[in-house]
Amino acid sequence: MRSIEWNQTSSKVQAIDQSLLPGEFKVIEFENADEIRGAIRSMVIRGAPVIGVAAFHAMALKAREIDTHDLKTFKEKMAQFAAFLKMARPTAVNLTWATQNALDFVRDFEGSTDALQHLIFELAERKAEEDVATNMAISRFGAELINDGDRIVHHCNTGALATVDYGTALGCIRMAHEQGKRVHVYVDETRPRLQGSRLTAWELEQYKIPYEIITDSSSGYLMRLGKVAKVLFGADRVALNGDVVNKIGTYMLALAAYDNGIPAYAAFPLSSLDFNCPNGDSVVIEERSGEEVLSLQQNGQIVAPANAKAVNYAFDVTPHRLLDALITDKGVLYPPFFRDISVLGNAGRSE
Amino acid sequence: MRSIEWNQTSSKVQAIDQSLLPGEFKVIEFENADEIRGAIRSMVIRGAPVIGVAAFHAMALKAREIDTHDLKTFKEKMAQFAAFLKMARPTAVNLTWATQNALDFVRDFEGSTDALQHLIFELAERKAEEDVATNMAISRFGAELINDGDRIVHHCNTGALATVDYGTALGCIRMAHEQGKRVHVYVDETRPRLQGSRLTAWELEQYKIPYEIITDSSSGYLMRLGKVAKVLFGADRVALNGDVVNKIGTYMLALAAYDNGIPAYAAFPLSSLDFNCPNGDSVVIEERSGEEVLSLQQNGQIVAPANAKAVNYAFDVTPHRLLDALITDKGVLYPPFFRDISVLGNAGRSE
Repeated sequence: MRSIEWNQTSSKVQAIDQSLLPGEFKVIEFENADEIRGAIRSMVIRGAPVIGVAAFHAMALKAREIDTHDLKTFKEKMAQFAAFLKMARPTAVNLTWATQNALDFVRDFEGSTDALQHLIFELAERKAEEDVATNMAISRFGAELINDGDRIVHHCNTGALATVDYGTALGCIRMAHEQGKRVHVYVDETRPRLQGSRLTAWELEQYKIPYEIITDSSSGYLMRLGKVAKVLFGADRVALNGDVVNKIGTYMLALAAYDNGIPAYAAFPLSSLDFNCPNGDSVVIEERSGEEVLSLQQNGQIVAPANAKAVNYAFDVTPHRLLDALITDKGVLYPPFFRDISVLGNAGRSE
Repeated sequence: MRSIEWNQTSSKVQAIDQSLLPGEFKVIEFENADEIRGAIRSMVIRGAPVIGVAAFHAMALKAREIDTHDLKTFKEKMAQFAAFLKMARPTAVNLTWATQNALDFVRDFEGSTDALQHLIFELAERKAEEDVATNMAISRFGAELINDGDRIVHHCNTGALATVDYGTALGCIRMAHEQGKRVHVYVDETRPRLQGSRLTAWELEQYKIPYEIITDSSSGYLMRLGKVAKVLFGADRVALNGDVVNKIGTYMLALAAYDNGIPAYAAFPLSSLDFNCPNGDSVVIEERSGEEVLSLQQNGQIVAPANAKAVNYAFDVTPHRLLDALITDKGVLYPPFFRDISVLGNAGRSE
């Protein structure tokens, strides 16, 4: 199944509950728009691409909930919800982009509210299909960069679970594996939410790709030992100059790769490009609750003093100078990234 | 109390059980030498300096256990145990150094085994006193490098718990605090064993030094945000060229400091210098069980698939080029480190 999809039988949106994996595989259903927003906020639905598609679904459910036939009132209520939805997570550009895209569609529409409700559902379905096609394109381009025998450090989760299907950075690895290349993945556990050990490891089990979990602070030493050929991760937002905003830890990982002469690649859909963002440091980085850091148990014991506080930035900024290539659905970009990115930006605007 | 000491009333060695903190403060007693070795192996006793002193205590207990008055047999049995003790943890040079030092003392002794048994206990006590004096010296030198208002990233635990008392890198911070300088510590949680969130945070609570816990992969981003003035850690072994072998994650931390122009300091006793070791990459790095990485629970859930394997190097190598100073009990060394270290090495040999 897909990580998020419309269930025609129940007339609900269904998604894999990512907070329960790998212990339990459970599908949850969303009856209304606020539930989807809550799931994005609490990271039951997570991963930039799937958050984007979930936003379309949330807008579709919201459209169904609005019981007016007055188009102007309908549009106002949709705009209200869109503003609320965008705030669920501030850093992933896909959420803003998808919500705005759906809202633009609503704003430009002329006709009956019934027809509009129907069309927003169709839009969400189309975007889900597009996401899968986009990921397959990313994965095909990325797989070309992977050689037989490569040992690859991968950060966070960028697989089928983070997207509607197949994945971005993990999709590249999966595609290389399906092409018959032997790959071994060092899975960064990815503190504090452990998307690596929980989700990426679970996916790799399904695909029968060999892997080992490592602590995030280990990758540099594995590189010094000569055990790593490539470093691969996704992107939650990419600036015009090629700076990558991604899961906390990406910067230190890319820096270690740079220090050891190992190529580091970010893989993402063009929808993660933010043409309004000159560089990574201009992006607002989401700070989440310290409880995410402090809520660990080890051997049944608490692992921090009761009064402890934690600082918990969800993302960091990897400067473009540390990156060897950006893998997108339109092809692989090489430094200096700003050249190709501004061409793409101009193309986007002229459409 | 000290983290390890001889209890005259019970005639046992007592130590703080570091595996139970911060949930429970418990003192455990060791009746025989093998128990101490087991505690070192399982990291109930951990931290390079305290491991060194524990080794002296283990040799003293072993001496008490040997029931022969034949000096030659006695010496043979001590040598046998020393070889076994050294293998408990391969990377910390203090274990090797302390065990060998005690064994040399035994080997050179002439007289009754009863007298020798007594003298080894005295030796262990003396070494414990020396460790405290050494740490105070390190801390005084290190505190001079810390300014009022500094926000400092600290890795692993290098405090009173890691030593007989007061600490090395954390001792420097504690001394600066006691001198009235306002300091704030960003405590690296230090996966996989979480010595930062478990032990360093607990110590900082006792000293009333303000701190926040961070995931190990966060420090680089905090540096990019301009929130970090210094980076401080200990050393399990230091090579002739100044390369530092320390808790896994130190390399990536020092690299991030270097990339952001922030000074990184290692603080350690001269006994952590290995004059037989030309550079860090010649040190055997201990690989520990993957279970240490995989045995986390979060919200009561398992965090890795049941079949998952993990790679778990306990230490890494930080090349000397990333370090701004080495803080020792004889003073602060600046690059190029090999100059001062070889002088110290020659002094050591002539003693």
